[in-house]
Amino acid sequence: MKASIGKSPGLAVVSVGKRRDSHTFIRIKLKACDEVGIATLIEELPENCTEHQLLNVVSGFNENPLVHGIIVQLPLPQHLDEEKIIDSVSPEKDVDGFHPLNMGNLAMRGREPLFIPCASKGCIELLLRSGVEIMGKKVAVIGRSKIVGLPTSLLLQRHHATVSTVHAFTTNPEKITREADIVVSDVGIPNIVRGNWLKPGAFVIDMGTNRIKDPSSRNGYRVTGDVCFKEATKVVSAITPVPGGIGPITISMLLSNTLDSAKRAFIFP
Amino acid sequence: MKASIGKSPGLAVVSVGKRRDSHTFIRIKLKACDEVGIATLIEELPENCTEHQLLNVVSGFNENPLVHGIIVQLPLPQHLDEEKIIDSVSPEKDVDGFHPLNMGNLAMRGREPLFIPCASKGCIELLLRSGVEIMGKKVAVIGRSKIVGLPTSLLLQRHHATVSTVHAFTTNPEKITREADIVVSDVGIPNIVRGNWLKPGAFVIDMGTNRIKDPSSRNGYRVTGDVCFKEATKVVSAITPVPGGIGPITISMLLSNTLDSAKRAFIFP
Repeated sequence: MKASIGKSPGLAVVSVGKRRDSHTFIRIKLKACDEVGIATLIEELPENCTEHQLLNVVSGFNENPLVHGIIVQLPLPQHLDEEKIIDSVSPEKDVDGFHPLNMGNLAMRGREPLFIPCASKGCIELLLRSGVEIMGKKVAVIGRSKIVGLPTSLLLQRHHATVSTVHAFTTNPEKITREADIVVSDVGIPNIVRGNWLKPGAFVIDMGTNRIKDPSSRNGYRVTGDVCFKEATKVVSAITPVPGGIGPITISMLLSNTLDSAKRAFIFP
Repeated sequence: MKASIGKSPGLAVVSVGKRRDSHTFIRIKLKACDEVGIATLIEELPENCTEHQLLNVVSGFNENPLVHGIIVQLPLPQHLDEEKIIDSVSPEKDVDGFHPLNMGNLAMRGREPLFIPCASKGCIELLLRSGVEIMGKKVAVIGRSKIVGLPTSLLLQRHHATVSTVHAFTTNPEKITREADIVVSDVGIPNIVRGNWLKPGAFVIDMGTNRIKDPSSRNGYRVTGDVCFKEATKVVSAITPVPGGIGPITISMLLSNTLDSAKRAFIFP
């Protein structure tokens, strides 16, 4: 884009506080942007910043024509109203796809959201590129978080899967999961999905990112998914590993969303 | 409300063209408003009206402080962009709950939409008042229309049901439906849900409104649901009839949404 029209897409990242995992995620995102030529702006606010300060930062990025995408790194400290902050991001720059207007347009068939949440978009991309048919397939989505489980269910339904959502109140989650041709897990509990939860030949996307203690590791922990990988590999036709599976694809989708947004801005300024 | 604060809630209805079923629905809504003291305004546009004319009417109602709810009766004639018209209704007056912002907030747990679509809200009301536990129950929602199936799925999930959506591309819809404790149907095909699709003791809500020819009837047709009522009654613990089941409750929910909106307007003008 820089070479052809002399302009670059721009991504703004807002971070509050010093959570180590959040800073790791941000570093990965910034590095990826750098590699593909997306300009980045980062605003780091202290843990005890006020809602007003944070809203002001978002508002500044909303107005800034060099910024095509805005990420407010979640989770925010408890004293900040996450809902209000997310609603303050312009839907036209909401590259995370978390604004309710974009989520509503994702839910409603026949409409096109401006942005689809990155992990969910990555999940579909992975299925399509792996030649997995989605239409008519039974899918179990385990977990219903606003940022992964929910939009993934909605997106799979747009692709005409028959989706069942499994959550903490589901009786016999293993039974529903065992009937699914495609299983997507985003629970946040290590190894909750066992081998006997899975249908032979199923396609499994593990969205979990869980830290478990591991004294043998340099950091004292290692990252694992929701699915018991060792058991699953004996049953399923394919499974994404954690780490290294859906994570990098999610980052690619963030770059893709930012590029799409920049194209829209340059074509219809 | 009139007696206590001297003010009435107001509902505006916009209708385009002369579809007989639409006019029947509107007449029922206006009559119900009249009975409970909700003031009504109706604007009837000709079949061939322009999008600009329709948008102007909606915009007028958005601005009018006497109007607390706006309904644009669907479906609209093909030359009008339904999405654009729905988006033009102020989310604060969207008593149908069809605006993507309200739909997004319905989908996202922890958030509160200003309005929940009336048929879906009626469905939950019916379950709760009938003492049917929703949490943890397996629910099959057959059909995924934007105005009934989708919001009903989303709302049931908010109530912690384990929801499976069944649609035209679902293989073995009868199998999934047969496993459900609660079945909600909104397909628009008479008698598609047969007795052997249903689990013994299930609770069935039939949202279908289908006209079938009936020479013995005064109009030459009669209205029937999606579920084969005669077969279902032998299997299930309860089923809503069509007509007379979910329809009147849906109208009540419209009145309730309009009243809620008026209260918000009078308390925070």
